[in-house]
Amino acid sequence: MDERSALGLLAGWVDAAGDDAAVIDGLVITTDMLHARTDFPGGTTRYTAGWRSIGASLSDVAAMGGTATAAVAAYGAPAFDAEEIAAFVDGANDVCDLTGAAYVGGDLDDHDEFTVAGTVVGRVDDPVFRHGAAPGDAVYVTGTLGRTGAAIREFERGNVERGNELFRFEPRVATGRRLAGVASAMMDSSDGLARSLHQLAAASDCGFAVEWDRLPVDRAVDAVADDDAARRELSTFFGEDFELVFTGPRAAVESTRGALGAPITRIGRVTDDGVLADGDPLPDRGYSH
Amino acid sequence: MDERSALGLLAGWVDAAGDDAAVIDGLVITTDMLHARTDFPGGTTRYTAGWRSIGASLSDVAAMGGTATAAVAAYGAPAFDAEEIAAFVDGANDVCDLTGAAYVGGDLDDHDEFTVAGTVVGRVDDPVFRHGAAPGDAVYVTGTLGRTGAAIREFERGNVERGNELFRFEPRVATGRRLAGVASAMMDSSDGLARSLHQLAAASDCGFAVEWDRLPVDRAVDAVADDDAARRELSTFFGEDFELVFTGPRAAVESTRGALGAPITRIGRVTDDGVLADGDPLPDRGYSH
Repeated sequence: MDERSALGLLAGWVDAAGDDAAVIDGLVITTDMLHARTDFPGGTTRYTAGWRSIGASLSDVAAMGGTATAAVAAYGAPAFDAEEIAAFVDGANDVCDLTGAAYVGGDLDDHDEFTVAGTVVGRVDDPVFRHGAAPGDAVYVTGTLGRTGAAIREFERGNVERGNELFRFEPRVATGRRLAGVASAMMDSSDGLARSLHQLAAASDCGFAVEWDRLPVDRAVDAVADDDAARRELSTFFGEDFELVFTGPRAAVESTRGALGAPITRIGRVTDDGVLADGDPLPDRGYSH
Repeated sequence: MDERSALGLLAGWVDAAGDDAAVIDGLVITTDMLHARTDFPGGTTRYTAGWRSIGASLSDVAAMGGTATAAVAAYGAPAFDAEEIAAFVDGANDVCDLTGAAYVGGDLDDHDEFTVAGTVVGRVDDPVFRHGAAPGDAVYVTGTLGRTGAAIREFERGNVERGNELFRFEPRVATGRRLAGVASAMMDSSDGLARSLHQLAAASDCGFAVEWDRLPVDRAVDAVADDDAARRELSTFFGEDFELVFTGPRAAVESTRGALGAPITRIGRVTDDGVLADGDPLPDRGYSH
């Protein structure tokens, strides 16, 4: 049984587990576990790890259209090094500062493998779910795609500083908040653009038609991709970029453009069924973690 | 650097990190990481693991005098077995049901070692902190002491069913809530009674005088302890019992006794300094995790 099936199973028992975050009683809450083997390539600093592990959960709150109140982390490591913990907390604090959340501490645990579970709590009055996209809506993404895929390549090449820089991202909390009431469906791109579109299509019972040339591929991808195939792989399938993928009436979305606090790009439109790029089926594959 | 020093370091950067849970903006939030090597002896069922990992955080909310709203878990395991996940969620749901919280899902992560991070969010208007104990107050504990120490012995002896039973505990959320405004200081006994008293003493700048004969040692301890030394070790130092340790004016506390929803035992009194049991220093040692 793979992770997605298991998640689906979980989703059957509890409301909202299939969305980016759970919503209950006016609160939005989400947790993410990251660890050395799968999430922190060699060279990842503890500062970046703190930023990224809390940022992943902040992005989930953004995807629900919520405001972020507080973040905690459970930090498991083979040793408790004061400088490493200080750097981790600095990273957690700095990413929180971008979103108005407060990092309020957590738990330290003796663990053989560096493992972090970040949790963010916020408030949401008018959540945006994955369902709600309607044929005729436009589909957008925030920011650029492919930063994390490019970061992994930079780490592999020993460009550790550049890898860390690309690994830190700005959670789109303010943007997601502003889109509440405007976007018809939203999620973050942590599983990659392709899988995100498939998940939105399944939740909204719709399809998508996007255009390759419209995708806002990050310049960092060009530095590491040798050809178009590699470029598409990193920007569309690799995932973990933590941008927002959302749908909505084009005019309504465009009227918010100047107030969103992040660049957005219209990449296509919502259709009745099928997930297509330039008319060809876009495979439902991406990051499994 | 050991965990406690590191936690102290963290506490210097963020308010309330040194308490059982963080309090911000009317919310109380706490996270705990548990994993196979140190927290789940062989024979621990996934049901018990779900119960215990969420229960640990519910206990922290109890210790602040808060109400529990929602719980999430990040579940890391080498394989995603549907029955195991179902059992875990059942345990998480059942412990939540005892406290009025809702288990609202979480994250699944591929991890070599079974690792869980539970997080609970609640609300608190009048938090009870570790500071506030005053000489002349009485000191109390809820429930009984030594269940977890006894559970470990039962697991070691192959009495797996009994071990699991003892491993599941009732988080004292309703009791902690009722004690808000009455208790002068409170924490949970997850580090053991001895260390809890030392931590309360340090936070409140006071001392304690307790009496060995007053300690409510669980009957399960008698089944596994061969002598008084073993009995004291399991009940006082072993920890992870998740009972509340609190102080307050004796008359005020006694007037709430019938409404607390859990038995409480007066084990001694708050003094000016020193942590003593029957007049002898009580060592500051306990569970490090």
